[in-house]
Parts: sequence; C-alpha cells; structure tokens
Amino acid sequence: MRAVDLIRKKRDGAELSREEIQFLVDGATRGTLPDYQLAAWLMAVIWRGLTPAESAALTEAMLHSGKVIDFSDFPCAKVDKHSTGGVGDKTSLVIAPVVAAGGSAGGMQTSAKGQRSICVPMISGRGLGHTGGTLDKLESIAGFNVNLSLAEFRDVLEKCGCALIGQTPEIAPADKKLYALRDVTATVESPFLICASIMSKKMAEGIDALVLDVKTGSGAFMKNPADAEFLAGLMVETGKRMGKKVVALITDMDQPLGRKVGNALEIEEVIEILNGGGPPDLRELCDELAAWMFLLGGRVSTLTEGKQLAVEMIATGRALDAFREVIRAQGGDASVLDDPSRLPRAKHVEPLKASASGYITAIRCEQIGIASMMLGGGREKITDAIDPAAGLVLKKKVGDRVEAGETICDVHYNAAARLPDTLSLLAKSFEIGSEAPPARSLVQKIIGAEGAT
Amino acid sequence: MRAVDLIRKKRDGAELSREEIQFLVDGATRGTLPDYQLAAWLMAVIWRGLTPAESAALTEAMLHSGKVIDFSDFPCAKVDKHSTGGVGDKTSLVIAPVVAAGGSAGGMQTSAKGQRSICVPMISGRGLGHTGGTLDKLESIAGFNVNLSLAEFRDVLEKCGCALIGQTPEIAPADKKLYALRDVTATVESPFLICASIMSKKMAEGIDALVLDVKTGSGAFMKNPADAEFLAGLMVETGKRMGKKVVALITDMDQPLGRKVGNALEIEEVIEILNGGGPPDLRELCDELAAWMFLLGGRVSTLTEGKQLAVEMIATGRALDAFREVIRAQGGDASVLDDPSRLPRAKHVEPLKASASGYITAIRCEQIGIASMMLGGGREKITDAIDPAAGLVLKKKVGDRVEAGETICDVHYNAAARLPDTLSLLAKSFEIGSEAPPARSLVQKIIGAEGAT
Repeated sequence: MRAVDLIRKKRDGAELSREEIQFLVDGATRGTLPDYQLAAWLMAVIWRGLTPAESAALTEAMLHSGKVIDFSDFPCAKVDKHSTGGVGDKTSLVIAPVVAAGGSAGGMQTSAKGQRSICVPMISGRGLGHTGGTLDKLESIAGFNVNLSLAEFRDVLEKCGCALIGQTPEIAPADKKLYALRDVTATVESPFLICASIMSKKMAEGIDALVLDVKTGSGAFMKNPADAEFLAGLMVETGKRMGKKVVALITDMDQPLGRKVGNALEIEEVIEILNGGGPPDLRELCDELAAWMFLLGGRVSTLTEGKQLAVEMIATGRALDAFREVIRAQGGDASVLDDPSRLPRAKHVEPLKASASGYITAIRCEQIGIASMMLGGGREKITDAIDPAAGLVLKKKVGDRVEAGETICDVHYNAAARLPDTLSLLAKSFEIGSEAPPARSLVQKIIGAEGAT
Repeated sequence: MRAVDLIRKKRDGAELSREEIQFLVDGATRGTLPDYQLAAWLMAVIWRGLTPAESAALTEAMLHSGKVIDFSDFPCAKVDKHSTGGVGDKTSLVIAPVVAAGGSAGGMQTSAKGQRSICVPMISGRGLGHTGGTLDKLESIAGFNVNLSLAEFRDVLEKCGCALIGQTPEIAPADKKLYALRDVTATVESPFLICASIMSKKMAEGIDALVLDVKTGSGAFMKNPADAEFLAGLMVETGKRMGKKVVALITDMDQPLGRKVGNALEIEEVIEILNGGGPPDLRELCDELAAWMFLLGGRVSTLTEGKQLAVEMIATGRALDAFREVIRAQGGDASVLDDPSRLPRAKHVEPLKASASGYITAIRCEQIGIASMMLGGGREKITDAIDPAAGLVLKKKVGDRVEAGETICDVHYNAAARLPDTLSLLAKSFEIGSEAPPARSLVQKIIGAEGAT
C-alpha cells in the first residue's frame, strides 16, 4: 500500500477501506509516514469529507493507536460528557459530582447500598484561544492533581464515583500526532476530523455512554447551528456504530455560560451551583446534561426523573460532598468548598461601565473569551502559562436592563500590561439597544435521542 | 506572515496576494517552510485552483527562485517549443535543427549573412512512466552530452542556432522542490501547478516566444480535450502576462506519433524525417510546430510561409546539417546521421501478430508507452536505468487494414524477463474492427493565435 495512492483516492472523492485508513493512522502513530503525506491527506479530507464507514474506521484506528481503558470489571455504567468548548462552560465540574452522587445514592430507583450504578471517568483538556479548559480550572484548587496514572485514575473512580484527569500519553497517540499537524496545516476545521479526534479519545476512556454538548453561536467553534448539528450527527452515528449510547445536545453559546469566566472564578461559580445557587442558565444546562447521563447510564428511566435526581443531589448537598471527596482524592484543598476566598484572587478589579442606557442585545462571546485570555486567564499558545485568578465577572447578560455608567462587567487582573487593550475589546463586546432581544433557548436540539436509552 | 494562514486562505477559496505566493515559494526554495505546510497548500490548490493573477505570481516566483538566463545580447529571437509529453513524440529533435537552419539561412525573407534571425535554446526533460524524454533519446547517440554548463549552452547556441540540454540546478529550484513534493502527495494533476512548473522553467531559458504542444487523447497526460484546452489557455495567458509570445497547439495523442517508440529507434525516425522521409503524421506536426516558431520569432509573416520554410530546410538538407552541427558541438557521434545502424540496436526483435483481420480501430497509446518502458525503453522511477535500444516499431497505425497473422508491431528488446508481460499488454493495446474509424485531425485547435505575432 502506498500513501500517495490513498491521498489520490481521497482527493478524487472515493472511499478508503478500513485497511487503508488503518495504514494511514498506523503510519502517523509510528512515524513511518512522512508528515507531508499526512498533511496532503488531511487537506483532501477537508475537501472531500469522509463517509460514515470511513469516519468509524478512522475513529477506531485512532482509538486503538493507544491504550483503551478497560473498566468492564466495574459493575456500573461508565458515562461521560464532552463539550466542544465554550466560554464560561464549567458544567463538567458540576455534573461529574452530581452524577457520581446520583450513581451511589439511593435515588428514585434503588441501587444496592455501597454499590454504584453509574460512575464518571472524565478525561479533559486544557484551554486554548478563547475557550477554557476543565484541567486549568481544577488546577486553581491548590494541590489538585490532574496528572494521575491510569491506575490512580481507576482508584479515584472506584472510591469517588468520578475522577477528573488530563490526557495521558497512552491514550490515542494518533490523535496527538494528527492534531499537532492539523493545527499548522489549516486542517482543524473538518467535522469528520473533529469527530474522530473527540470520539477516539472518549471511547478510550472505557465508557458505555456519552452525552455530547455541541455548542453553537458566537462563542462556539461551530458558529452556525447547521454545522453544529452536522458534527453532532456524525459523532452520534460514530459512537453508535461502536456500540455506545450517545446523545448530543445542541446548546447555545452566543453569550458566556453563567456569569464567571476565568479559572478560579469558574470554580467559585461551580461551588455556588453545588450549593443550590448560581446563575440559572448554568444550572439549567447542568441539570439537563446530568439528566441525560443518568438516563443513558440506566440510573433513571425518563429524562424528567433524571432532572429530579440532579436537583435532589444538589439540594441534599450530596453533589457537593462528592466534589469534596474527589478533590481530596486527587490531592486538592477541599476547604475551598467551604471558603471560596481561599481560591486564587486577583489583586485588582476594574469595572467596565455601560456607555449608554438600554438593554444588552448581544455579547460577543468569542471576544469575551479572548479578553479573559489576554488577562492571563487563557492561552494563546499551548505552552503559555496561566494566571488562575484572572478573568471576568459579567454583571449583565443578554436581555438585562442597564443604565449608562452602570457596571456591566468586572475585570479581575494581576498583570496590567494588556488591561487597556482588554478593556477596549470588552467595550466592543457588549451591544446595547433599546429593546430586549427575544430569549434564546439554551438547549436548541437533541440529536440521537431516539433509542438512546 | 504565517504559512498556516495562507493555507487556510486558499482552502477557503480566497485569492493570495503576490507577496503571499512569494512567501510560500521562497519558503520552498530555502527550506524554511516545512514540507507538510507546502503539501497542505498544494492540496488546497488542487481543490480550489488559482486565479490568473495567482498563476502569474506563482510562475514568476518560481522563475525567479533561480537563475534566469539572459540572452538579450543575442541579436535574434529566442524561440522554444514545449510538449506536455506523449508516446513516440520526437518532434523537438526535428524542429530544433529545422528552426536553427531556417534562422540562419536566407530563406523566404532575407537575413544578414552569418547573422541569425532565430535560435532555439532548448532545455528538456527525461522520460518517466509511459512518456519518453528528449534527453534520453539524445543520449542514445554515443557521446552526446546533455549536461552542459550554462556557458557551454550559450556557446553551442551561438555556434549552431540551437542547443539541447537538461535541467540545471540553477534553473527554477522551487519547481524541483515542489515537483518532488507533488509527486508523493498526489498533487501533480492540477493544471495551475502544471502551468507554473512548465512556464517557470521555459521562461528561465531567456526566450522571447514559446510554442506549446498540448497533447490530448489516450496517450496524453490530459486525456480529455477540455482539460488540454484549459491547461493550454492557462499557459498562454501566463506567458502573455509575462510579455512573451505564446501559442498552444492542442494535438492528438490518441495513438503514438510516428511509428517508432524507444530512444535509439526514435533518433532513427528523426533521421528519416530530416532526410525527407518518415511517417506523414510526424512530419505534419513537425512542419506545423516549426512554422509557428518561425512565425512567433518574426522569421516569416504567415504560417504558410513558415511551413514552406520548414519544408525547404528539410528538402535542402540544411536541417540535417544543423542537426549534425549540434551533435558534434555537444560531443556526439554525428556519423549516425549517415549510418543509423551505428545507433544502439536490440539483440532481438519479436513480431506481434494480428489475431484477426480487419482495420486497426484504436491503439491504446498509454499502454504502448508502458510496454516500451517495460522493455527497458523508459523508467518507472526517475532513478531507473534505460536501455537505449529497446522499444517498438508500429507496422500498423489506426485506420490501417490488417490480416490475421500479419505483423502489427515489432518488439525490440535485449532483456527477455518482462517480454511475455509486454507482449500480452501489447496484444490488448491494438483494437481491430470491421471498419476503419474516421480520421482524427492531428492539430485539433490552436489557442492564443490572435495577436501572437
């Protein structure tokens, strides 16, 4: 088999066989194929796309390029959630403990005492560009170790019902290789390649079911709902071909989720939610995602029951306890849950004032993410350091009434160097008009619900 | 400027600026851009094509990546011909001496005695795959040196009115780099990249005018006339933008040109033509191409005059003398012109017999080229050695009557190893039917003739 023939085949719009895809992925993993051939093939995929069979073959080949975790000895459903990335999206940190708590507690359905019915093995990523990353947020809790070995991951999962770690080198090395190449060859934006990248890593977690949160809107990677739905459909199809239960929620990311953007600030908001407070949009999405996880994991038999269980886990404090447990198990300072002021705090807070009176009609969400990044809350390059305290607190969200001179947003920062640029970017990020825009629904569509359970 | 942004721009169908194209070509030439970025960009070009301005910018950047020969001190028109490659196409070897002779002799228009009005600086290539190469054919003449320095090239051109050499490392190094990459990334077949590759090398020859022979039919690179015309139009447009006189002839390559295929065999046929004999199709195309070269070079004022001058140069033996002169000047054994049996000869000749009676309705031209290659007459890989004596002599061409058992083709070979495979391929290459097909015209279309002179 020659790579040049496989590139030509895809270039001409033909379908590659499972063996041919395997050959390319093996070549990428082992370094036996030159990067220029992989790059040409990736661009041909951007052009021609992949058939469902090719998508499944690519995902499986990437999945099996490394270690596939086997949790089959865990007598419970392994369920995870993955989001395509947004601004202020801290749902993972809420739902991991909510689902862990619901999976161990006697809820609306009985489960044997001490025996879990669901657990959440969650492998997350870092923030890049305008989007935040779960690992960076967790690391703003002093001592929290996201770099567990797979053995430690297993121990924490068994003990706590959830475990929260970063990508390990054993998982899907083909994805690491191909992602690095895509990043420098303008071949990131193919739904087929995005699907294979996400699904290969998620399937390597040894899960039975997966809830996908595919963002759409100005702060999302897929700004257009049709693109988001297409990607969601691909991922659901690919997961189902691999025998997993998968649903995808298309959710709104046209403004930041919740009010806080930045690592420690987002942990603070997670604690608010787990204490029964916090912003309603964030709470709504967490309840919805957790409910789907309960449903796909067989913990409940309807979505309504799933939501009730999520509500109960928060109301009773069991979710907060589960979070406390996993923070401790991963070496973190759990006292932040009782005293959030122990989280890193910025030295300075600068308010951004409204320039006019009216209603907030739009928040340019990607710009909010970039502003947080400019303050040190995110990374421009993967090697950049992060300031866990930096970020933004939105005082107003879309639809809110605002008076001229009123604070729209508090800017938390330590390093003042990029503050003026950040403020001027932020000033352009909020649009004020004379009428409140119609409300957008947070969950816009659900893909793959039929027969998901 | 970042290569990834330029790749993305082309991927999304936008036009790159002259500076952006220059950046990519410089990066290729100097090795400062990684091959994987160039490969991704090349595939994006295959997908999106290039605008006329981009084509011109790419050609110019590639042209100026190396040395551009300056013949401006030669007081004559510098004219060359380029063919896109075919089977049995030995026209270069006929027309270089014909035009050199017509450029120095007092023909139908007077030219100062001893002063040339046209010369032919010809830089040619090697054969690859099913197509032959002018350099390989010349090297079947003992001693003929195609590897002249540019200074020697200039001397031979001045002395003989034509000079025939191979690509030198100084000429268009960006093309060498990009071609090698295209070859292994399935990005050869873009008319835009083909145009830039051909035109950058031809413009580096320091010519004033260029006649392009764009082949179409079963033995051509562009099998489809529309593709051939598109490429021809691109090359004419690009050449004219660069201030050169360019015409392109779309010519038939649905069967081999002439009767002989293989290196020494083709030299033999060139000698037949220069002696006034040889197959009529080959002679017709040589007259036509030479006429256009005379016309573009200002040696004659009509195409008819150009043809008459070509005919005269052959009839008077002046073209043969010019060939003799250039062979001697480049170190070759010119006595082969008087005694072609001094050319390398194969030890064995195996006739291929007709399996049925009827008319030859088609000759699968690419297969004929591959058969010659399998005998050692061509190369599968650029590093393969060649047997100058190996090849084929067609006894029948399309439209000819043949009786069962009659010889269609003589197979000249030294190495018997691949003979059975070659014979079985050849047997499938000739189609015999009950009626002669309608004749195809050799010159199908002329592109760029308006205002060419």
